[in-house]
Amino acid sequence: MSLYIPKGFLFSVAEAAIKKPGRNDLALIYSETDCIMSGMFTTNKIKAAPVRLDMKKLKSGQGRAIIINSGNANACTGKQGLKDAVEMAEITAKLLRIKQDLVYVCSTGVIGTPLPIDRIRSNIPNLIADVGKYTIEDTARAIMTTDTFPKIVTRKVRIFNRDVKIAGICKGAGMICPNMATTLCFLVTDADIEKQALDLSLKTAVNHSFNRITIDGDMSTNDTILIMANALSVSQKIKLDTEAFSIFSSALIEITQELSKLIVKDAEGATKLVEIEVINAKNDKDAQRAAFSIANSLLVKTAIYGNDANWGRLMAALGYSGIDIREDKIDIYLNRLKIVEGGIGRGNDNEANNRLKEKEITIKIDLNIGKGSAKVLTCDLTEDYVKINAEYRT
Amino acid sequence: MSLYIPKGFLFSVAEAAIKKPGRNDLALIYSETDCIMSGMFTTNKIKAAPVRLDMKKLKSGQGRAIIINSGNANACTGKQGLKDAVEMAEITAKLLRIKQDLVYVCSTGVIGTPLPIDRIRSNIPNLIADVGKYTIEDTARAIMTTDTFPKIVTRKVRIFNRDVKIAGICKGAGMICPNMATTLCFLVTDADIEKQALDLSLKTAVNHSFNRITIDGDMSTNDTILIMANALSVSQKIKLDTEAFSIFSSALIEITQELSKLIVKDAEGATKLVEIEVINAKNDKDAQRAAFSIANSLLVKTAIYGNDANWGRLMAALGYSGIDIREDKIDIYLNRLKIVEGGIGRGNDNEANNRLKEKEITIKIDLNIGKGSAKVLTCDLTEDYVKINAEYRT
Repeated sequence: MSLYIPKGFLFSVAEAAIKKPGRNDLALIYSETDCIMSGMFTTNKIKAAPVRLDMKKLKSGQGRAIIINSGNANACTGKQGLKDAVEMAEITAKLLRIKQDLVYVCSTGVIGTPLPIDRIRSNIPNLIADVGKYTIEDTARAIMTTDTFPKIVTRKVRIFNRDVKIAGICKGAGMICPNMATTLCFLVTDADIEKQALDLSLKTAVNHSFNRITIDGDMSTNDTILIMANALSVSQKIKLDTEAFSIFSSALIEITQELSKLIVKDAEGATKLVEIEVINAKNDKDAQRAAFSIANSLLVKTAIYGNDANWGRLMAALGYSGIDIREDKIDIYLNRLKIVEGGIGRGNDNEANNRLKEKEITIKIDLNIGKGSAKVLTCDLTEDYVKINAEYRT
Repeated sequence: MSLYIPKGFLFSVAEAAIKKPGRNDLALIYSETDCIMSGMFTTNKIKAAPVRLDMKKLKSGQGRAIIINSGNANACTGKQGLKDAVEMAEITAKLLRIKQDLVYVCSTGVIGTPLPIDRIRSNIPNLIADVGKYTIEDTARAIMTTDTFPKIVTRKVRIFNRDVKIAGICKGAGMICPNMATTLCFLVTDADIEKQALDLSLKTAVNHSFNRITIDGDMSTNDTILIMANALSVSQKIKLDTEAFSIFSSALIEITQELSKLIVKDAEGATKLVEIEVINAKNDKDAQRAAFSIANSLLVKTAIYGNDANWGRLMAALGYSGIDIREDKIDIYLNRLKIVEGGIGRGNDNEANNRLKEKEITIKIDLNIGKGSAKVLTCDLTEDYVKINAEYRT
């Protein structure tokens, strides 16, 4: 798998022993020239200090560098937390000799523990000194928390007869749910694109990817997606409602969908990737509500884990989703096998249980009452999820 | 513990080997005289056949007997399911020599499997023949599914200088959530009470008990609460807005609260009983939303299981509940130990972790912005919950 790294982006990592020593837990993404920036943030009312800081910075629509730490979320850390986030940006900007406004800060890890700012302060110089000596993979690895593998997706597209590259990294695992379903995602591109076009492109991509996955229904205080575009591909400028915009946007949707799929695949303790598709609902909104109701049902998720095609639990989750349904119209397919017809089981449970042994599961619900549809990605719920999350801090 | 059994109520159980042989899975509650009846049912749009049947019957406000089976929910079973439920009532009525309208039917167990009506049909005669030979405990035991102990609570109160008795049994375990948080609950009383008063009394009690507990956020297709009042205590009639009504209602609230507490204590795989109390929210509704948001968070529930006072997860769940909060106003107490003050941890995590080792946990959240409050009961989430629910049908 060859990676397409957009021109002018450099990476670095360093060890600050934020949660514990022995791994790189500081990372830097740096562009050789100023970038147009766009971003989306958690809708949780409790927002981590760096999130609040970045939301302010993003008003300028410009940026040049992102410094990230894992091991500590710098959330619920009061005024000191905000001071610490500001200081991280300050030191980074000073050493990079760029304006402080152009440096964004992201944190991920435990909530409520003060950031060990001394160790971060003393290690940022190493981070900056090594800019360009590390790869995007090193960076993807440094931002991991309980993730078991780094998540990187890149694409190359032809726009105005030039190669334009887009690369994305993210971290996830647990606490993944609708409305910004990742903890951190960074996208970089050498496209030359208008701010407005970049904004719309990102929003569309996130709505078709990160906002369509759910692991445990929890939503983080730190969720952040940032995209930087430095225009170094020297194509013409990509504007709204043009073919170039379509090409760019499609690539961005593909990248974010693949990244979000990697997050679900790596969900804490999960053994199966599960797609819930609801079709012929009264409308798209109903379809989405039903899909999330099923995707978040613990009884559904444990049944999938146990290879038990217990479709009654799917019916129950549909029923309490609150959407319009007609019980005697509902058909359900499990990996293309029809298991429910007109609201009644077809009696092929053994075959259905066998289908559940596959690693990728598709549950399709045909409500047969309208034209709305939605797809949501989720995973099974296992003893290991409980174990990992019971022991996370200790 | 002595049980107060209201006058004129008789019990019976029998074995129909509905899911498997070796236990009593048919039960009967029978009153020697006609009763005023009141009930509440699941709000799930997918309702089991017996639920739909009972909802119709209840319009008369009268009843005399309830026949219950465990091992099969008779839900998602189409027209045959409804026929089977009707037949259960028919046979029971015929053998009891009472009107069919006076016989209610309840089922609990696996969804989507046709009821083994042959075995039920051939065993109802045993059930009826043995009326009065069994106790309320036998009945409470026969309606169990994954429950580990029978749940019975009784009270005796003085009304109009007479002893009035109320007895309740229920089954729970898993699939417990707001809005009728039990699968089945049966209350019987020898009170002489107006229909309207009985309705209000039940509604108030359920809102203060079963609607305030949550285990996994799922809601059953079969949830049913029925109360029968046969007037055999020969007191005067209890009417709305009287002292007698207050006494009766208070006792009913106590009984349903204790029963719902027993359900949470016996939740699948749970090791701890957890009370979430939210105070000084903007209003009661906000307080309730916040309490349920915390009570349903998998990350909170696994942390409690792991004795990890990870209050950041409480803050995150408060944040995504969507209610009005001010981060710097939030105080959190864990079993009376203040662990968060003004949104910031007090650094007493070790002591807090120790408090979590207790079997009954109280988490109190003071939002400090208004006067709304709410209490919700829940439990921790363990590997055993996953195990039980991954293997339930097999």
